[in-house]
Amino acid sequence: MRLRHKPWALDYLQENDHIAKLQPEQLKGKWAEEFGNDRPIHIEVGTGKGQFIANMAKNNPDINYIGIEHFDNVVVSAVEKAIELGAPSNLRLIRGNAEKLEEMFDKGEVALVYLNFSDPWPKARHEKRRLTFKTFLTRYRNVMPQGGEIHFKTDNRGLFEYSLVSMTNYGMQLLDVSLDLHADDVLDNVMTEYEEKFSAKGHPIYRLEAKYQ
Amino acid sequence: MRLRHKPWALDYLQENDHIAKLQPEQLKGKWAEEFGNDRPIHIEVGTGKGQFIANMAKNNPDINYIGIEHFDNVVVSAVEKAIELGAPSNLRLIRGNAEKLEEMFDKGEVALVYLNFSDPWPKARHEKRRLTFKTFLTRYRNVMPQGGEIHFKTDNRGLFEYSLVSMTNYGMQLLDVSLDLHADDVLDNVMTEYEEKFSAKGHPIYRLEAKYQ
Repeated sequence: MRLRHKPWALDYLQENDHIAKLQPEQLKGKWAEEFGNDRPIHIEVGTGKGQFIANMAKNNPDINYIGIEHFDNVVVSAVEKAIELGAPSNLRLIRGNAEKLEEMFDKGEVALVYLNFSDPWPKARHEKRRLTFKTFLTRYRNVMPQGGEIHFKTDNRGLFEYSLVSMTNYGMQLLDVSLDLHADDVLDNVMTEYEEKFSAKGHPIYRLEAKYQ
Repeated sequence: MRLRHKPWALDYLQENDHIAKLQPEQLKGKWAEEFGNDRPIHIEVGTGKGQFIANMAKNNPDINYIGIEHFDNVVVSAVEKAIELGAPSNLRLIRGNAEKLEEMFDKGEVALVYLNFSDPWPKARHEKRRLTFKTFLTRYRNVMPQGGEIHFKTDNRGLFEYSLVSMTNYGMQLLDVSLDLHADDVLDNVMTEYEEKFSAKGHPIYRLEAKYQ
């Protein structure tokens, strides 16, 4: 997405530190305390402008949601979206790097990982950057209990093909696959900004649910 | 496909018994003898009118091919196709039921199984009839050596989604997945009759290669 320069971004995030967490590693092992309850925690890695995670939080008050996004400027948009939706108390937004997930969460602290429209990194030499590369699958596994799940959707055919192979060869079990999500009768699909634009053009959205064994 | 009544079908198959095998169980364990060599044997389960298997045989003389088809009338079309392509000596066509695969082949006698545009059996109560249902996966495994492969293609989204889940949950490893075969640069894709018609309409062809562990 286009990154607009926002010189006030850091100030804005600090002002909204009830939602935005700039030093998530300080909350490792303490997320239940942060939320004030021990409900399951679902995280979105690469949360972008936050439409998905903020709506999920609003729709599902019995689950705690954390969106993780690398860029200050983009986290700002996600915080704005959260506030627009009433700043649900079960939502936090992390400014952080997905490579450092294990520094943010204890083993078992996360119940489910969402990946939505992740960067496809189509060149073979960038394989390691794809969020479904095996080192990332290990990171997700290391913050979830046994049997943790990843729910992944994308419009990118190459990334989806790659991820099917990568996840199953990692030993994950496929629970569900859709090769045209919007053609199926899915009642509770919460769309990302990108998904709204892309699916309006009639292209298929691919989705899978996979489980660690 | 439409089945035309051919009262002469059985006669025709008997006349062409160098290609058509009406009693394949008599050849169990003796296929190398039948072909006169011990080259790898690839089978297509549900061979239809034979365009795929006959062209594969013509293009790959170092592999032996066997097409299996349930209906006399359809086997006739496959035999006609084989003769049209010069009746390759590395091709046989079986009139038989895929449920009885283990009566036709010894363990390890088949190197690779092709499934092309298999009947999707979309109703949940017909799941057991799908050629990627677990009982069929067991049958294929029982005629192949360890590490045997299935190469599967279809235009049917539901069947492909189902098969990804069924095969990986059976413990098979995905080697390759394409969600739009004809958009990829595939040099040696041999099309079935159905595939030619269907892909001409611009719909995607799904394909996977999966391996037993």
